[in-house]
Amino acid sequence: MSDQGASPTPSAPPPPPTGRPPKVGIRGRASAPFDSSNLDATDMPELEYFVAAGPRGYPPLTEYLDIWDVDMMRGRDQSNKIEHHTNLYQSDNLIVRRGQEFTVKITFNRPYKPNQDKFAVEFVIGSSPQYSKGTYIPVFPTRERQSTWEGRITHTNDNVVTMAITPLANSIVGKYHMYIAVQTPFGIRRTKRDNSRDLYILFNPWVAEDAVFLDDEAERQECVMNEMGIIYHGSYDDVSERNWNYGQFNYGVLEACLYIMDRSEMPLTNRGDPIKVTRKASAMLNARDDDGVLVGNWTGDYTYGVAPTSWTGSTDILLGYASSKMPVCYAQCWVFAAVFNSFLRCLGIPSRVVTNYYSAHDNDGNLKMDIILNDNGSIDRKRTKDSIWNYHCWNECYMSRPDLLPGFGGWQVVDATPQETSDGMYRCGPASVLAIKHGQICFPFDAPFVFAEVNSDVVFYARKNDGTMEPVKLNQTHVGRMILTKAAGSEGCRDLIDQYKFPEGSPEERTVLAKAEEFGCRREKSSPPEADVEVVLPNLEISVGDDLELSVEFSNCSDQKRTVEAYVSGNVVYYTGVSSNEFLFKTPTVTIQAKKSVRELITVQSKDYMDHLVEQANLHFIVTGKIKETGRIVTAMKIIALHNPKLTVELTGSAKVNEEMMATVQFTNPFSFNLEEVYLRMEGAGVMEPKSRYYSLIPGGSSLTWTEMFSPQRTGKTRVIATLDCSALRQVSGQASITINP
Amino acid sequence: MSDQGASPTPSAPPPPPTGRPPKVGIRGRASAPFDSSNLDATDMPELEYFVAAGPRGYPPLTEYLDIWDVDMMRGRDQSNKIEHHTNLYQSDNLIVRRGQEFTVKITFNRPYKPNQDKFAVEFVIGSSPQYSKGTYIPVFPTRERQSTWEGRITHTNDNVVTMAITPLANSIVGKYHMYIAVQTPFGIRRTKRDNSRDLYILFNPWVAEDAVFLDDEAERQECVMNEMGIIYHGSYDDVSERNWNYGQFNYGVLEACLYIMDRSEMPLTNRGDPIKVTRKASAMLNARDDDGVLVGNWTGDYTYGVAPTSWTGSTDILLGYASSKMPVCYAQCWVFAAVFNSFLRCLGIPSRVVTNYYSAHDNDGNLKMDIILNDNGSIDRKRTKDSIWNYHCWNECYMSRPDLLPGFGGWQVVDATPQETSDGMYRCGPASVLAIKHGQICFPFDAPFVFAEVNSDVVFYARKNDGTMEPVKLNQTHVGRMILTKAAGSEGCRDLIDQYKFPEGSPEERTVLAKAEEFGCRREKSSPPEADVEVVLPNLEISVGDDLELSVEFSNCSDQKRTVEAYVSGNVVYYTGVSSNEFLFKTPTVTIQAKKSVRELITVQSKDYMDHLVEQANLHFIVTGKIKETGRIVTAMKIIALHNPKLTVELTGSAKVNEEMMATVQFTNPFSFNLEEVYLRMEGAGVMEPKSRYYSLIPGGSSLTWTEMFSPQRTGKTRVIATLDCSALRQVSGQASITINP
Repeated sequence: MSDQGASPTPSAPPPPPTGRPPKVGIRGRASAPFDSSNLDATDMPELEYFVAAGPRGYPPLTEYLDIWDVDMMRGRDQSNKIEHHTNLYQSDNLIVRRGQEFTVKITFNRPYKPNQDKFAVEFVIGSSPQYSKGTYIPVFPTRERQSTWEGRITHTNDNVVTMAITPLANSIVGKYHMYIAVQTPFGIRRTKRDNSRDLYILFNPWVAEDAVFLDDEAERQECVMNEMGIIYHGSYDDVSERNWNYGQFNYGVLEACLYIMDRSEMPLTNRGDPIKVTRKASAMLNARDDDGVLVGNWTGDYTYGVAPTSWTGSTDILLGYASSKMPVCYAQCWVFAAVFNSFLRCLGIPSRVVTNYYSAHDNDGNLKMDIILNDNGSIDRKRTKDSIWNYHCWNECYMSRPDLLPGFGGWQVVDATPQETSDGMYRCGPASVLAIKHGQICFPFDAPFVFAEVNSDVVFYARKNDGTMEPVKLNQTHVGRMILTKAAGSEGCRDLIDQYKFPEGSPEERTVLAKAEEFGCRREKSSPPEADVEVVLPNLEISVGDDLELSVEFSNCSDQKRTVEAYVSGNVVYYTGVSSNEFLFKTPTVTIQAKKSVRELITVQSKDYMDHLVEQANLHFIVTGKIKETGRIVTAMKIIALHNPKLTVELTGSAKVNEEMMATVQFTNPFSFNLEEVYLRMEGAGVMEPKSRYYSLIPGGSSLTWTEMFSPQRTGKTRVIATLDCSALRQVSGQASITINP
Repeated sequence: MSDQGASPTPSAPPPPPTGRPPKVGIRGRASAPFDSSNLDATDMPELEYFVAAGPRGYPPLTEYLDIWDVDMMRGRDQSNKIEHHTNLYQSDNLIVRRGQEFTVKITFNRPYKPNQDKFAVEFVIGSSPQYSKGTYIPVFPTRERQSTWEGRITHTNDNVVTMAITPLANSIVGKYHMYIAVQTPFGIRRTKRDNSRDLYILFNPWVAEDAVFLDDEAERQECVMNEMGIIYHGSYDDVSERNWNYGQFNYGVLEACLYIMDRSEMPLTNRGDPIKVTRKASAMLNARDDDGVLVGNWTGDYTYGVAPTSWTGSTDILLGYASSKMPVCYAQCWVFAAVFNSFLRCLGIPSRVVTNYYSAHDNDGNLKMDIILNDNGSIDRKRTKDSIWNYHCWNECYMSRPDLLPGFGGWQVVDATPQETSDGMYRCGPASVLAIKHGQICFPFDAPFVFAEVNSDVVFYARKNDGTMEPVKLNQTHVGRMILTKAAGSEGCRDLIDQYKFPEGSPEERTVLAKAEEFGCRREKSSPPEADVEVVLPNLEISVGDDLELSVEFSNCSDQKRTVEAYVSGNVVYYTGVSSNEFLFKTPTVTIQAKKSVRELITVQSKDYMDHLVEQANLHFIVTGKIKETGRIVTAMKIIALHNPKLTVELTGSAKVNEEMMATVQFTNPFSFNLEEVYLRMEGAGVMEPKSRYYSLIPGGSSLTWTEMFSPQRTGKTRVIATLDCSALRQVSGQASITINP
């Protein structure tokens, strides 16, 4: 206690507050809020005086040049949109690509006098426009006055001046407001804000100065302009296709893409950099952390949303997110990749969806996927936690990489599917495909993760009673078997595996793996002895509901008799490789004479698996076993993707722009049981908006026909695609191609 | 409509749900939840049979070797804790460092027979222990049985076996449960879970195999073992010190650090990697995104928490976070850095707090800080949005970087203060200091950002009436002037600037800047002509409440007369450089003869600034102006950090362990006004827990004395530090050193 004036209050200091900490402002931290919204905008003042008001107020500025009209030349058929490859966008505003000239027409109140009149076309983005940040850009009609975007007068006709403007090739991508400012000796007079003059600036793969320049017209047509995508799924041995309408030009989609960046609070100043835009978007496309676009769901229960297999395109998802401002339910990997693809193509970044078959997951630079076997050679399901996805979809986008050492530009992996990794931020990439191929995974972003997705080994461990484990088999070729994407300009597919990996067994491949290990990737080092019995499972193409015969072939490569105590396990698995149910378990003992083969026939009846099926109807067969004579382990794995019934889609009518046509979807329930709560969806790029229909019941064996009228909006080749989805039968689809004539 | 059985329901499909999307489970996505909690644990079963139950049930296992007792040898004075440098931790459990042997004593029911008895010491972390993930580690006493952590019996005495165990040098860092498992022919019998046998494993800077190995005992003593820190602040010309008790060994702090990693949901398997641990922690130390430890607040309003200037150490913050599970209010950069430092030292990662003077901020690889001048040469405050922090604190931590090209290990920058950047994830680093020095900023993580913090140029732009701007002056030496840290083993400071930058003007510096530009850093390219008049502001050391005289020197280097139309602006600024109030504005016109100097005297009275002061009481003087004859721009800037009154701390007593002593804090209010709602805080490493006291009023001119009794807990040199804080006067501190004898 003090006796000199100040005395402590007997009561304790006020208790710390509970509950969430209060919101803290920016005062003291920054002189202005960070400009991270394209939607927010401050209007520029109509009058800005240089001089103080005199005794009679401010001098009038009306005697100087006045603006009567501004024509943004934003028609679909006008040269701006055609030359900028933006005429397909369903938008009333002018949309141009950066680094490339566009023209506007300005009508003054009298002929423009170059030596006397001073005006600027001003472009403004965000709420605190700054010249030095590239968010306020005045463009002058003459070279004498400095201007970051070049301006020139191409034509003068009476009161009308045609001005050509070239935005810098690294401009911020987004929506700008446009003003005309006339400079007088006393101040500046500006046009009123007019939303019809708003200008969208996109990335430009057609100009060499842009970081996304792609010098291949066929690839640009595919990876920027094409709306009707094909996404591959199924299994490595039995590839299936999924049609997808990216819808990047549909009404509202561009606004939705800008909203996604606003929602992420991405600073405007970063929105000209495709590296930063794609990285941010890979985080924002999924709802983890940041209330992004899509909620991932692999549970099979989609009661509160749309089943991932049911979507036919991205439009519904993007517009739904932008209007509800809530994450959209539900997605799995191809939905994340497809919507991401729409986002990228819409903004002008060349991109494609790729499918990696046998993709190692949640694998943080660890090049091992562990399968644990019991002492007897059967799988220890309780301890086997890793799963290899039958396939996984991600995106590649094309850009230069000035942030890396030279040579690593080009295609970059980005992935919006949320993964469980150390960085744990549910974002991935951009990672240079070439860097992955060469094991140069020290460069940002997330290259070790992508490297592991295509290069992991499958390690079989035998677990002993005392808890120790010994690697008994190594499969170095299972993972990353094939990487498919739609070929440019055709409906065929292209395998990109040679972009990601050198051939298996080549000296380059060994060098690359060693390089990756230098950068901290961990591999299994032991090389367990090879067994001298080989087990092979057959390729089968089976439809849902069929019985099947699995002929397991055991080949004895040795010159002595071999006896295999085998475990054959049949499982219903998700496409993530996660097992749902074991429907078959057999333990044959197989005796094989020296240098001979034996086939063991396993019969599976449809009733064995039908009740257990989960959405993508994959059956996973695993054979493991121990050779009695040598103690060596044999293994074989095979995914059989059961084929679903198909929808029939028929298009009838004249196939001309604006003339009514009819689409008919037909489906017959092939099962003896009823299908309940069935959704059908249908859409087609440039011809039909997304439509859906709900059937509470489709009785076993019965058929339905759904007819919709539509009017094609533009010419060219396109497709109408339809899906059917219910909890008992997912991923049923159909499509019809059509060429629309003028 | 179909007429073939199935008919669509006339009603529309059920509307999509509104509100937040429901939580989605892992089914289908993964076969087990990701193990990301060190606190969750599943008990290992006491009995685990290899054989099926017989007709009379399971065979009894009791006839085999039985465990009577396990001694973890966890006493503070026992060799485990002394040799592992963990004896200062206030914990009853054994704490060891990885890669280094420790011993336990196991008492059996009879003498151990090596050839017959089989047992394992098992270490288990998390709720789904897996051998292949390093979360289940059985250690055997003999080399014949494979074991990832080496085990050996060092001594056998009757029933007691002393076993030495060496955890791998890359083990997961955290809390392990320990069991002894005896293997019998029929199964395994285990000890019951016993929390007193829990073992903490830390990083180990003392062994070469550990990624955090630091081969310098003086640095290890400072950067791992030292608790009493000094953090530098003030201004470049007038450095001040702040004492801080890191408290990394205090009771509960280690548990709090593990809780932070659990709270971040960091996978256990990543917790052995210092790169991943430090990156994750840099995100978790601030509350942005992830409800991390500290809420940043720079507003001056700390009503709902503790003012950043008031804290004396990290203990209260870490324990508060772990117990409330809520972010703690409030922090500014040195609080983030200090608490991060406690976290790192507590886990065994060598680390230090550094202070960068004139730090460029929120600057995303853009090497420019813009100051906008009006046409007349005065500052345009509305358009000047960038701010340079007087100082900024971050952490360096020491580790190898196998993820980068060779050579970039060593000290790494990590920063927990939330920044506004593209990645926007409020995390930064680890970024190699050597890579920053050499401009090799293509390597992860966030190197371009740190590079900009120390290498940005200050660019003065003149803004013309038409909105265009022209760079008129470039200051390339202002930013990143000095980087101070406490010197190892002394209370002096060390300037690390040569670790970050080559000397200004050297050829190496130019090469480095060019290199950084190759990697996408953007600099101002123009080189505006130099003015031939120099303006210099004086260094001043002033106390709060003093009047001051500012003598501005204008030197004319030309051989002609020069007239400067100058603007002298005095501002109260936050330490972030953000201006709060302009208290002085003068516009002298100064005429200087050829090759002469003129001093312009500006008088500032305390009443001018006293009412405007914000916490750290910095006055920022800026002189700008235009030379009439040449139109060139002159500028000068100076921060004057006003000195606060001090607390007197006196320690009296015998200065022996466990003997009571007295600490007396004295303070006199030097002002004529009252100080209200005043908090005092006091603590001392190893001698006093954090204590605080609240005074509702300290009348002007009056004094207070606060006395606390304490008992030193251990020998050695330490300090007791105290702070006083109220809204009218922040950052008042005092300290007293003491050496405690046995």
